[in-house]
Amino acid sequence: MTAATAELSELTFQTHPDQYKHWLLSVEGDIATLRMAIDPEGGLREGYELKLNSYDLGVDIELADAIQRLRFEHPEVRCVVLTGNLDRVFCAGANIVMLRSSGHAFKVNFCKFTNETRCGIEDAAENSGLRFLAALNGTASGGGYELALACEKILLVDDRNSAVSFPEVPLLGVLPGTGGLTRITDKRKIRRDRTDVFSTIAEGIKGKRAVEWDLVDGIAPLSRWDEAVGEMARGMADEIQVRGDQGVPLPKLDVTADGVNRTYKYVSLQMDEAARTAELTITAPDTCPTDAAAAFAEGANWWVLQAYREFDDALLHLRMNLRMNALVLVRAKGSSDTVRKTDALLCGSDHWFVNETKHFVKRTLKRMDLSSRSFFAVADAGTTFVGSFLELALSGDRTYILNDPDIPVNLGVTEANAGHFPMSNGISRLETRFLGTPDDVKTVLDHKSGPDFDAETADELGLATYAPDDIDWEDELRLAVEERASFSPDALTGMESNLRFAGPETMETKIYGRLSAWQNWIFQRPNAVGERGALSCYGTPNRPEFNLERT
Amino acid sequence: MTAATAELSELTFQTHPDQYKHWLLSVEGDIATLRMAIDPEGGLREGYELKLNSYDLGVDIELADAIQRLRFEHPEVRCVVLTGNLDRVFCAGANIVMLRSSGHAFKVNFCKFTNETRCGIEDAAENSGLRFLAALNGTASGGGYELALACEKILLVDDRNSAVSFPEVPLLGVLPGTGGLTRITDKRKIRRDRTDVFSTIAEGIKGKRAVEWDLVDGIAPLSRWDEAVGEMARGMADEIQVRGDQGVPLPKLDVTADGVNRTYKYVSLQMDEAARTAELTITAPDTCPTDAAAAFAEGANWWVLQAYREFDDALLHLRMNLRMNALVLVRAKGSSDTVRKTDALLCGSDHWFVNETKHFVKRTLKRMDLSSRSFFAVADAGTTFVGSFLELALSGDRTYILNDPDIPVNLGVTEANAGHFPMSNGISRLETRFLGTPDDVKTVLDHKSGPDFDAETADELGLATYAPDDIDWEDELRLAVEERASFSPDALTGMESNLRFAGPETMETKIYGRLSAWQNWIFQRPNAVGERGALSCYGTPNRPEFNLERT
Repeated sequence: MTAATAELSELTFQTHPDQYKHWLLSVEGDIATLRMAIDPEGGLREGYELKLNSYDLGVDIELADAIQRLRFEHPEVRCVVLTGNLDRVFCAGANIVMLRSSGHAFKVNFCKFTNETRCGIEDAAENSGLRFLAALNGTASGGGYELALACEKILLVDDRNSAVSFPEVPLLGVLPGTGGLTRITDKRKIRRDRTDVFSTIAEGIKGKRAVEWDLVDGIAPLSRWDEAVGEMARGMADEIQVRGDQGVPLPKLDVTADGVNRTYKYVSLQMDEAARTAELTITAPDTCPTDAAAAFAEGANWWVLQAYREFDDALLHLRMNLRMNALVLVRAKGSSDTVRKTDALLCGSDHWFVNETKHFVKRTLKRMDLSSRSFFAVADAGTTFVGSFLELALSGDRTYILNDPDIPVNLGVTEANAGHFPMSNGISRLETRFLGTPDDVKTVLDHKSGPDFDAETADELGLATYAPDDIDWEDELRLAVEERASFSPDALTGMESNLRFAGPETMETKIYGRLSAWQNWIFQRPNAVGERGALSCYGTPNRPEFNLERT
Repeated sequence: MTAATAELSELTFQTHPDQYKHWLLSVEGDIATLRMAIDPEGGLREGYELKLNSYDLGVDIELADAIQRLRFEHPEVRCVVLTGNLDRVFCAGANIVMLRSSGHAFKVNFCKFTNETRCGIEDAAENSGLRFLAALNGTASGGGYELALACEKILLVDDRNSAVSFPEVPLLGVLPGTGGLTRITDKRKIRRDRTDVFSTIAEGIKGKRAVEWDLVDGIAPLSRWDEAVGEMARGMADEIQVRGDQGVPLPKLDVTADGVNRTYKYVSLQMDEAARTAELTITAPDTCPTDAAAAFAEGANWWVLQAYREFDDALLHLRMNLRMNALVLVRAKGSSDTVRKTDALLCGSDHWFVNETKHFVKRTLKRMDLSSRSFFAVADAGTTFVGSFLELALSGDRTYILNDPDIPVNLGVTEANAGHFPMSNGISRLETRFLGTPDDVKTVLDHKSGPDFDAETADELGLATYAPDDIDWEDELRLAVEERASFSPDALTGMESNLRFAGPETMETKIYGRLSAWQNWIFQRPNAVGERGALSCYGTPNRPEFNLERT
């Protein structure tokens, strides 16, 4: 393994504030402070130092964990202040040496996870009434500024030195912040000629001009920095309601590892390494709470929260640790009654904890949509694709439903399919599926109040891609799986990225669809990663040498 | 020059039906037939044979010309039938050997031009009342099917053999049709699991299933093929109005070439090869027709039509022949009064010829937006960025305006800036610029009825990126130009592609922004273009060998 493709043996995504190496989380009343204090020696692997609060995936895994815990464990918090522990520098963005020495697939997946975390901050602001203030106590560059952009408000210290900047184009020959350009054009809606200028000034923009161009919401001198941050956070907190007073702790998930396989309580992931396929199965239990108080009493053990936490963890394991996996066969099993009762609660309660759980399920489903794996939903003996479990099938690229009167297969629709779990494009999976025949959405949703239906009906409703009988089933599925695994992995990624998001576009689809694709392109180009590419030369005595052809 | 980067010395985009090698254009009454009859030996360069109606850029240049002429020269035509001259095959898509032996930049620019031509067909349908029927008399594969998708209706021959197909993913390891996936999801709105299946079946889908999946609008047996095509075309034609009876012939543009430079009547393009910059200047004449009848009497000599035809030709020359060019300095000169009078006519007349001219100006401006070049609009001595000419400045990445009381610079707004020339994102350049401050659009448009204003006012209105005085002007512009040319060309392409299209997304922005970026990425990947990549191996005895990592 050469330095250029140095990678990690296995990544884990479970952590806890007690174990954080890079963040300090403190809560005082209704204001939390999340302080970036990156340990330069605490990188995920050897070979780079996380200087100047530059980050790697490990830093972002902790950040994602912290945001998640703030949502579940601290309903009393109304405003989160993101700030840094260094003088003059808030965050220098993604670590360049780490990027340079990572393989392409890792780099792409790192950027994706980072984007998901940033979008998670925005999701918390929109759906949990949790406001974020980026208190930039020093310069925020590249991904550091992008993190600030994900926050609702940005306050920058006015010390004649600290700036916000996107130095990637001039210094590294890659796109800024992996998502930042979309936030600058579509969230802050800054004039495009100014974003052009801003994105080419390596040293960034500071002070009054940063405010004038709306790159930040305000500045404050060092002499009254803490006071200014406190006032702004106080003001933001006072404008919204407190969600709750008692939080729900999120314990570590129990997982049994057997080689690359993973078995959790409600989820199992079995990989066939030779075939490059994985079986991912989620199972609903026989009983469940039916009102918010009972669900809250169960806390993190509430089956639906635990099941999707496990599913999310399995997806990340697949993405980052099982990169040779081509295709995932998804099954949903267990009690339809449990899913129906739980969906009714998820979609009908205004309890903060139920709301948080619903949005977590939504984010997990989105994580699936955004994973560069083919997903085939398999509805065969004993499966229960009902309601929120049906969303897993609708997330898939295809659905195979066994249509045999002797082998009952359970399918069904609930309120959960009527828009409670929007995709990144802002509409439901049913609406995306039936974009050209919107009446079909209604016809399917007519089955909302039950009962479940069989394969035949599912096929008539347009929910099956293929519905072979028992005689053809095995061969048809086997051939489809073998074929899928034989295709170019890159062509599949490109194809799925385009087919999965028909219809409307949002900031999210732009980030994952458009901007990511350009970045992936640039990350492959010799002008960035070649021997004399800008990313390769940065911080070395060499100057980049470009192929000057405009493409 | 190796085979892998074999390219053309210089391309020209002017042609005429008399010179077509690959298309037969015939007009009978209100129905035109455009018959693809590709000359296998007529490729743009040596090294490949255009078998089975497979195409290269030369074929598409003729197609673009034919569509353009149908709009201007044949206002009597209401329906265009696109069909082929071969048995069993309509069109096999882009020629694989040509693709394989082309350099990356050429390939990307070829795909872009092809997409622009396809979008041009849709623009004609939407804005010229010209309906297109793809009469697929044989199999339409890849780009061949994409061409059909660009038409409003598709009729497929039902001969047990002919199909529509996207074989790229299974056979070539690249994305289908360079724009086709967007049309399938967003124009025909076909169910995503079906598009997934369709895009992985190399042999395609034919007959009744093609109709059932809405891949085509109808099928007809060979025995009554001509009759069925005729009936469908007749029906389509009868549903709309005839635009006019007498066409406007489009003569060859007069152009003086001096090395790579080009001088036309109203446009000049001067390249500084050492600096990698070009100066592109458009000039309005002193007098002009002021009503539709007078404009129509001038025909293709009407200054605004000729000027933008020249501008369009210069842009294509820049793109395809001057690929080392980094940055274009755009100037607009001449009579403001002429531009104002012409804008009033363009935006106020319902004459078909004026309408065609307006939409041609629109498409030329879009071509500029979509060119992978940096554009700086330069407003200095003698320039006239008024109305439709102001759109050129608004297309640019930045605007430099000389702010010196002794050197008058002319700027102004007309009705043309109020939405008559939408960008690919469907909104005006002013609306895109002021996405975050929509009131600024109104403030600018308050100047619509004139008079022109000076640099100072333009700056106050937010139209200048920089407005230095005479003392700083030269240095500031020179430094900005030198800096721009020093950046990674790829990073600039990615950045500009993202910054130029803030706000709403459309099928067009998806095609040029999202899908193109994925294709560009895949076009660079070893799994497609490496020694054992799928594109490299196709048609050879070698089987592709993939790096199986999903990215």
